[in-house]
Amino acid sequence: MKETLMRILSAIILLPMYIYSFQYSEGLFFLPLYLMGVVIIHLGLKEIYALSNREEEGKPFLGTGFFLAQVIYIIYYFNFLFRQSKFEVPFFIGNIAKYFQADYELVTICIFLVIFFSLINQILKRPLDGAIFSVATTVLGVIYVSIPIGHFFKILALKNGIYYVYILTGLTMMTDVGAYFGGRLFGRHPAGLKISPKKTLEGYATGIISAVIYCLAINFIWVKVWKDTPSFGTIETILFAMVFSVISVAGDLSESAMKRDAKIKDSAGTIPGHGGVLDLSDALLFTIPLCYIYLIVKEMLGFSI
Amino acid sequence: MKETLMRILSAIILLPMYIYSFQYSEGLFFLPLYLMGVVIIHLGLKEIYALSNREEEGKPFLGTGFFLAQVIYIIYYFNFLFRQSKFEVPFFIGNIAKYFQADYELVTICIFLVIFFSLINQILKRPLDGAIFSVATTVLGVIYVSIPIGHFFKILALKNGIYYVYILTGLTMMTDVGAYFGGRLFGRHPAGLKISPKKTLEGYATGIISAVIYCLAINFIWVKVWKDTPSFGTIETILFAMVFSVISVAGDLSESAMKRDAKIKDSAGTIPGHGGVLDLSDALLFTIPLCYIYLIVKEMLGFSI
Repeated sequence: MKETLMRILSAIILLPMYIYSFQYSEGLFFLPLYLMGVVIIHLGLKEIYALSNREEEGKPFLGTGFFLAQVIYIIYYFNFLFRQSKFEVPFFIGNIAKYFQADYELVTICIFLVIFFSLINQILKRPLDGAIFSVATTVLGVIYVSIPIGHFFKILALKNGIYYVYILTGLTMMTDVGAYFGGRLFGRHPAGLKISPKKTLEGYATGIISAVIYCLAINFIWVKVWKDTPSFGTIETILFAMVFSVISVAGDLSESAMKRDAKIKDSAGTIPGHGGVLDLSDALLFTIPLCYIYLIVKEMLGFSI
Repeated sequence: MKETLMRILSAIILLPMYIYSFQYSEGLFFLPLYLMGVVIIHLGLKEIYALSNREEEGKPFLGTGFFLAQVIYIIYYFNFLFRQSKFEVPFFIGNIAKYFQADYELVTICIFLVIFFSLINQILKRPLDGAIFSVATTVLGVIYVSIPIGHFFKILALKNGIYYVYILTGLTMMTDVGAYFGGRLFGRHPAGLKISPKKTLEGYATGIISAVIYCLAINFIWVKVWKDTPSFGTIETILFAMVFSVISVAGDLSESAMKRDAKIKDSAGTIPGHGGVLDLSDALLFTIPLCYIYLIVKEMLGFSI
C-alpha cells in the first residue's frame, strides 16, 4: 500500500514538470526539456553501468561513457533547434546549431569514439581480463540511453510532434499503471515469464486496454478541446496503442532481464515507489525510437505524418 | 621464415585486388569494393563474435548482428552512390539510393535496432544469466566492424578521396610491415606492453619511419606521375603519418587486448601468415574513421580537403 501511495505521489510531482517541459517551454527554447533529458541520461547511465560492474571481470569506462552520451544527446538537441520552425533560435545558439546539421553523421562518429576511447583506456589502464566486457558494456549503456532520449527531440520536431509525445508517453505510462492495478485487482493466471514471474495475464490485458482507452481519449480531446485533427485515425490509433503497449512491456522486461542478470531488483532508489530512473523510463527507451521509425516509414510510403 | 613468406604471398594476391577495387572499379559502380567490404565485415564479425563466446555466461546474437551490420554497411554504400559525382548511377539504383539520403539517421536507427532485437531475443530464447554480456557484445561487434568499413566509402566520396585512401591504407600497412621487419632486424629493447610483450621499441620506431617515408613517396608520385597536387603539404604529411602510425599501432593493440581477453592468439586462420581478417584490418578500423574525423574538422575550420 505504501508503495502504491509513493508511486502516485511521485507521479503527481513529476508529471506536471514533464508536461510543462515539452508543452510550454518553447519560450525557453525547450531548455527545461533538454535539461530533464540530461538528468535522465546521466542517472540512467549510472544505473546501467552499476548493473554492468563485474569488478575484476570487467566494468564500463565511466568517464568515456558519461561524456559521450551527453555529447550525442546535445547533437540531437542542436539538430532539433536547427530543424524546428516554431520559434527563432538566438543568433549565437543558431550558429552552433548550424554546425550540427550533418547531425547523425556526428552521432555515429561519437558511437565509434566510445569504442575507440574505451579500447585506449583498456590498453593503458586495465589488466587484460574483461577487455571485451568492459568495452562492450560502455558502448551498450551509451546507446541504450542516449539514442532513445535523443529521438524524443526528433519526434517533437515533427509537424504534429506534441500529439505524438502525448500519445506515446501517455500510452507507455497507462500500460504500466493499467498492468499494475489490473494485476492487483484481477490477477489470477501468471503470464509464465521467467523474468517477471509475478506478472499476470489479466494485468497485461488491463495494461493494453488502458493504453487503447487513453489514446482514444487523447484523440477526443484533440478534436473537442484543441479543435485540431489528430494525426492517427481511429483504427490506426487502436492498432498503434495495442502494438506499442506490447513494445512498452518488452522494454520493461528487457530492463528486468539486465537487472536479473546483475541480480538486482530495482535499478536504483532514486524515485520513491518506482525504483530508479531506468525502471521509470525503460518502456520509453523502446517506444520512442520505434514510434519514430513507424512515422518515417509511414512518410516514406507517402502518407502524411 | 615460412610465416614471413606466407605474409608476402598473401599480400601479393590481396593488394592488386584491393587497389583495383577502389581505383578502377568505377565503371562497375565500385561494386567490387562494396563486395570486398561485405566479406570483410562478415568474416571480421564472425571473428569478434567467436572472441565473445562465453557459452552459458553469454554470447552474441549472431543473426541480429550479421544482418544489421550488413544493413548499416549498405546504407553507407547507397549514400556514397548518391553523393559522389564521378559517374552516373543507373536509374533503378539511383532511386533506391535516394531513399538513403537521410543516411546516418538510418545508421543510428540500425544501431538502436541491434540492441532492441538482441534484448527481444534474450527475453524469448535465453536464460537470464549473461543478458548484459550477450546484448553488449552483439552491438560492440556491429559497431567495431561496420562503421569503420562504412567510413571507407565516406572518405572515397571526398574530392581527393583516392589520395586519402592511398595515404591511409598504405600508411597503416607500412607501419605494420616496418614494425615487423624492424623488430626482427634491430629489435633490442622491449616496448614493455603487457598485451604484446614481444614488440620492441626499435620495431615501433621503424614502423613510424616507414609510414612517414611511404606518405612522402605518395606525395612525390602524386606530383610527378599523376601530375596532380597532393592534398597534404609536406609538414602536414609528416605529422599526419606519425600520428596515424601510432593510431594504427593502437588499433592493432586493441584487437590484441580482445584476443588476450578471450585467450586466443590469431582471430582466425583465414589469411595465411596474417591470421584472421581482424588481424589484417584491426589498424584500419581505427585509422579510417579517425582520418575522416580529422578531415571534417579541418573542413569545419575553413581549410579545403
